[in-house]
Amino acid sequence: MVVTAHAGDFVWRAGGAIALAASRGEKVTIACLTFGERGESAKAWREGKKLDEIKAIRREEAERAAAALGAAVRFFDAGDYPLTATAELTDQLVTVYRETQPDVVLTHPTEDPYNGDHPAANRMALEARVLAQAIGYPGEGEIIGAPPVFYFEPHQPEMSGFRPEVLLDITEVWETKRAAMECLGAQQHLWDYYTDLAVRRGVQLKRNAGPNLGLAHRTMAEAFMRPYPQIAKELA
Amino acid sequence: MVVTAHAGDFVWRAGGAIALAASRGEKVTIACLTFGERGESAKAWREGKKLDEIKAIRREEAERAAAALGAAVRFFDAGDYPLTATAELTDQLVTVYRETQPDVVLTHPTEDPYNGDHPAANRMALEARVLAQAIGYPGEGEIIGAPPVFYFEPHQPEMSGFRPEVLLDITEVWETKRAAMECLGAQQHLWDYYTDLAVRRGVQLKRNAGPNLGLAHRTMAEAFMRPYPQIAKELA
Amino acid sequence: MVVTAHAGDFVWRAGGAIALAASRGEKVTIACLTFGERGESAKAWREGKKLDEIKAIRREEAERAAAALGAAVRFFDAGDYPLTATAELTDQLVTVYRETQPDVVLTHPTEDPYNGDHPAANRMALEARVLAQAIGYPGEGEIIGAPPVFYFEPHQPEMSGFRPEVLLDITEVWETKRAAMECLGAQQHLWDYYTDLAVRRGVQLKRNAGPNLGLAHRTMAEAFMRPYPQIAKELA
Amino acid sequence: MVVTAHAGDFVWRAGGAIALAASRGEKVTIACLTFGERGESAKAWREGKKLDEIKAIRREEAERAAAALGAAVRFFDAGDYPLTATAELTDQLVTVYRETQPDVVLTHPTEDPYNGDHPAANRMALEARVLAQAIGYPGEGEIIGAPPVFYFEPHQPEMSGFRPEVLLDITEVWETKRAAMECLGAQQHLWDYYTDLAVRRGVQLKRNAGPNLGLAHRTMAEAFMRPYPQIAKELA
Amino acid sequence: MVVTAHAGDFVWRAGGAIALAASRGEKVTIACLTFGERGESAKAWREGKKLDEIKAIRREEAERAAAALGAAVRFFDAGDYPLTATAELTDQLVTVYRETQPDVVLTHPTEDPYNGDHPAANRMALEARVLAQAIGYPGEGEIIGAPPVFYFEPHQPEMSGFRPEVLLDITEVWETKRAAMECLGAQQHLWDYYTDLAVRRGVQLKRNAGPNLGLAHRTMAEAFMRPYPQIAKELA
Amino acid sequence: MVVTAHAGDFVWRAGGAIALAASRGEKVTIACLTFGERGESAKAWREGKKLDEIKAIRREEAERAAAALGAAVRFFDAGDYPLTATAELTDQLVTVYRETQPDVVLTHPTEDPYNGDHPAANRMALEARVLAQAIGYPGEGEIIGAPPVFYFEPHQPEMSGFRPEVLLDITEVWETKRAAMECLGAQQHLWDYYTDLAVRRGVQLKRNAGPNLGLAHRTMAEAFMRPYPQIAKELA
Repeated sequence: MVVTAHAGDFVWRAGGAIALAASRGEKVTIACLTFGERGESAKAWREGKKLDEIKAIRREEAERAAAALGAAVRFFDAGDYPLTATAELTDQLVTVYRETQPDVVLTHPTEDPYNGDHPAANRMALEARVLAQAIGYPGEGEIIGAPPVFYFEPHQPEMSGFRPEVLLDITEVWETKRAAMECLGAQQHLWDYYTDLAVRRGVQLKRNAGPNLGLAHRTMAEAFMRPYPQIAKELA
Repeated sequence: MVVTAHAGDFVWRAGGAIALAASRGEKVTIACLTFGERGESAKAWREGKKLDEIKAIRREEAERAAAALGAAVRFFDAGDYPLTATAELTDQLVTVYRETQPDVVLTHPTEDPYNGDHPAANRMALEARVLAQAIGYPGEGEIIGAPPVFYFEPHQPEMSGFRPEVLLDITEVWETKRAAMECLGAQQHLWDYYTDLAVRRGVQLKRNAGPNLGLAHRTMAEAFMRPYPQIAKELA
Repeated sequence: MVVTAHAGDFVWRAGGAIALAASRGEKVTIACLTFGERGESAKAWREGKKLDEIKAIRREEAERAAAALGAAVRFFDAGDYPLTATAELTDQLVTVYRETQPDVVLTHPTEDPYNGDHPAANRMALEARVLAQAIGYPGEGEIIGAPPVFYFEPHQPEMSGFRPEVLLDITEVWETKRAAMECLGAQQHLWDYYTDLAVRRGVQLKRNAGPNLGLAHRTMAEAFMRPYPQIAKELA
Repeated sequence: MVVTAHAGDFVWRAGGAIALAASRGEKVTIACLTFGERGESAKAWREGKKLDEIKAIRREEAERAAAALGAAVRFFDAGDYPLTATAELTDQLVTVYRETQPDVVLTHPTEDPYNGDHPAANRMALEARVLAQAIGYPGEGEIIGAPPVFYFEPHQPEMSGFRPEVLLDITEVWETKRAAMECLGAQQHLWDYYTDLAVRRGVQLKRNAGPNLGLAHRTMAEAFMRPYPQIAKELA
Repeated sequence: MVVTAHAGDFVWRAGGAIALAASRGEKVTIACLTFGERGESAKAWREGKKLDEIKAIRREEAERAAAALGAAVRFFDAGDYPLTATAELTDQLVTVYRETQPDVVLTHPTEDPYNGDHPAANRMALEARVLAQAIGYPGEGEIIGAPPVFYFEPHQPEMSGFRPEVLLDITEVWETKRAAMECLGAQQHLWDYYTDLAVRRGVQLKRNAGPNLGLAHRTMAEAFMRPYPQIAKELA
Repeated sequence: MVVTAHAGDFVWRAGGAIALAASRGEKVTIACLTFGERGESAKAWREGKKLDEIKAIRREEAERAAAALGAAVRFFDAGDYPLTATAELTDQLVTVYRETQPDVVLTHPTEDPYNGDHPAANRMALEARVLAQAIGYPGEGEIIGAPPVFYFEPHQPEMSGFRPEVLLDITEVWETKRAAMECLGAQQHLWDYYTDLAVRRGVQLKRNAGPNLGLAHRTMAEAFMRPYPQIAKELA
């Protein structure tokens, strides 16, 4: 399960992780709280498009990108810039948690001085995860366990307290991620930017890898943080 | 490979991790920089024992404990309280790294306001790991890769900046760890203390575990930190 | 004055401090914002009890526990999981501050990634304390001074930024605290857990104690943080 | 016991605490590692004085200041700018610890980007305190307990990670501290600076004081940090 | 553009910066969210004044102080103690941003454990700045660029995570700032306090200044933090 | 003045800043503590070159790169991997400080978990700067003022506590920096890596720039930290 603020976030920040999970046959559900219609669609506004048109464009782009990655996307249309955390929206997320019973949760990190919608999505994703665990919290469906949470990388990581705690090797699904990025015509300037980032995180992965991994020459990677401890059967 | 300041540290702090690795057939080498003869043998001193006697006692205890865990231990007799970081001792560790080609490195965390020997061991373990990677650093043996590093838990974790980033399930080797602890007659007051700690870390493991782990009723655990990013093929 | 999110918190986290104050003849008022009816009563929900029944059970348990400690408890029934910080609830706390004119304030720390109700209680307790100091803030009663604030220990201290800054010796009231814990039948699994914690904090107290304290063999302790500076007439 | 890098530090930073302890009849020993002859005597150097002359001046000033405060001072003449931490100097401090059996230890904080001698003194003071506790560490005298440690305020507190955790009311000994400051002719520009600081810390003390302290109109204060937990019989 | 919680803040914390900008012919707009009528007017309340009278007094004082500094002030009368962050108030700030197209933004830092109104003003000032940059956010006026942000100094800097990252030399406008302070009769006790602070920050400026600045003997300064990176054409 | 651990550091990390200063007619002196002969010359070692050959190659490369940037370089040949901080080497740096009287100092940041030589260079650069300010510290030449210090970007910034506090626009000297990088044949794999980094820091610069800067379409930038406060005549 992936909880994001805007329509494009799941592609730039977690497209590789999603494609990997899908390639293993896992079901991935993306909860997209807004279309990014106000804050992340500058090009469309400059072209004179209207709010509804922009929402429709972003929705269509995101649906194609999700399909390319092998995931299902649900839109909440909660309004961006600002996205406001509410009890109602959090409750809707509880319902999704209980319905999908996720093994892993991905969302934004807690800080982003350039975009307040990202921390708002983070707060709701985390709060809903805790509420969904409580038998006393009302609603349909079974309570969930304590699925591990990963924060994906923000646009300016050093300014957002982001430290790469997990480097995920996405080399084998890289072409899929690139194809999903290319579905996002509204943010074309980011295609190469996030390709370069994947290369750089790949270099870092190799620098931190143990001796026997047999890595590809050009390893591509995504970085994540863990707010909760890793549960392990073995140190590695 | 485990680098510790004193003869008992590897038992209290990483005995479960060592026993688990040994149970999987891996070879574990413990580099014990001192016997803990001055700083961790108060009982023996109060009984009027001499320095050499105390070293001999602690060595014998540690060897029995290592054998119980299935590991080999090497003593460097570098002198404790204070343990001083030197280029010579670091160079000896480089030799061990290159000889053993470790897949994983365990050592003390960087801070301990109650015992300066622990941070000194940490500094040498980390520096030697980096030097052992460089083809230009002189010495016998092949250079090593970049094995992941884990810091084990200090005696007063909250005062030492310790945060459990990895909780390792040691339930299946718990009896082995307890038996190793009981080899350490000089620090008998710690047997129950570290048993209680394993219970508490086990409770925490269960609280943080994903839904499908099928955990034992009484899960025992050890906690570790990661100073370097985790390299992953899958988020879990 | 103690401000807590749920009915049990004041017992597990500050029962010793409360009993000590009561034993000195001080009046202790506990502001219990919710009964913990949804988030901390899993056993009762699994037994099929209804919301009102659960509230009644938790209220009755908390009243008996408070009586055992020698304190008075007031319930605000603000609803838990989630407890939402509101201006109205904060204003009610201002009224209690002005009425009780507390010498000391105890509450939850600012962070708890496992339970958002605790930080919510913290924010209201701190905000109300500041408002109650202002002559311009409307309401009954005299304004208060600046009573020192202590944060009590969360369930997973290292994950909540908790560092033991004050270790309170509760040995002489330990039996009272244990008796109060045993009033909380809904959370029986925690009785031994918090007994072990008191032992461990007692060990830590002895390790940090000055030379002349004449401590009991088995010292029991509770840990606290101070968000504001300590005012002292003497360094000790 | 007070461990300082330079001859003037104990006056500016802890003169009030020393005078208070002396006024209660306690014995205060100041370990002055250097005379501050190179780094804190610019005026004398500009006047063309020689190294030995400057040391003599600073020693004489410090002795008079210590006498004014009611304390004894010992000089180690270890050389400043830079003061280098050595095993020998640390060992001398162990001897002083064991000889004086201090109830309280005062020293510099761990960071000071403007003066490396201060952190060096901190490291030796802390290490010697730990070594002096160990029965296995050789030397004369009885081992010590675990006296609480206080860090006094550096010249640029915000740049040195200094946070006032304890505000000590020194109003009743203020005249004594001022008299001691006036013994330090080599640093006359600091007399008013540190008087203003005491006023400001006094304002802060009153702002943080509980309701019933009956404070003086013009309260003077010194600020300290605690690296170890406070041991308490009562929360206040 | 300056965004402050209460009527006096812009004088104590940024009066020098404002006067300097005005002296260079720049237009300075102060957005004063409240009059500080409840939380910062204790003297008037003790004299028995009414809410409306106090607001009128504080407004008149602030207008005179702003005029003295050469700035225009706008009042939002949003109610203090507590000042509550709302979407409406944030939207009003967006309008001011777009209207004034500021080159620089000054506001409170993110933390203040003594006054929650200051962080509330910070949050709205930062959020409105980001929203005002988005072409998709509705409202009059042109979108703005990314003007640098400076946080001014809180009353208890070390307790509020404040670190002087920029020291601004206000010597040449010091008399103007003092005159503006003296317009604030309601807080007379702060005139000398903030004069002393300016002296101390001036001493710190000189201690950190490069070699060739030709500073005044008595340099006066204000301290600021930068939440965003400095953009530079030259390192200096 | 630039103090670096290895022969290549000043090019990758500060080549733009150096070229900018040189283009303004300023004299730039680079203190290169080692040739990076052991730790940063893996390619040459794999080709079977000897230590002296490698040093000669690295020296020659670095001299050509410095010439390309318009700077003078001095080698200290202190031995790398590990570079050890010594009083002698620090004293040599004091001499350079006093001789060159720098207006600005550039060096490595305080942390780098991948290369201990960088923090060692940092410590000596900072200590020597403080000693060079003291009239009492012996040696030739005039004492220096307090030149501002900038830390340049490490290879893995997020793992080294690096936060871009200053973004320097190096667009106009970019070709010069690229030419200098191409002098470093021993590390050819880094040419494109550091070109990409400059692009990315340029994107970040534009995102953080104020409204009226008239930036180039493809802005290139370098990032720095400031350990000491900025001294300013104007907020911008």
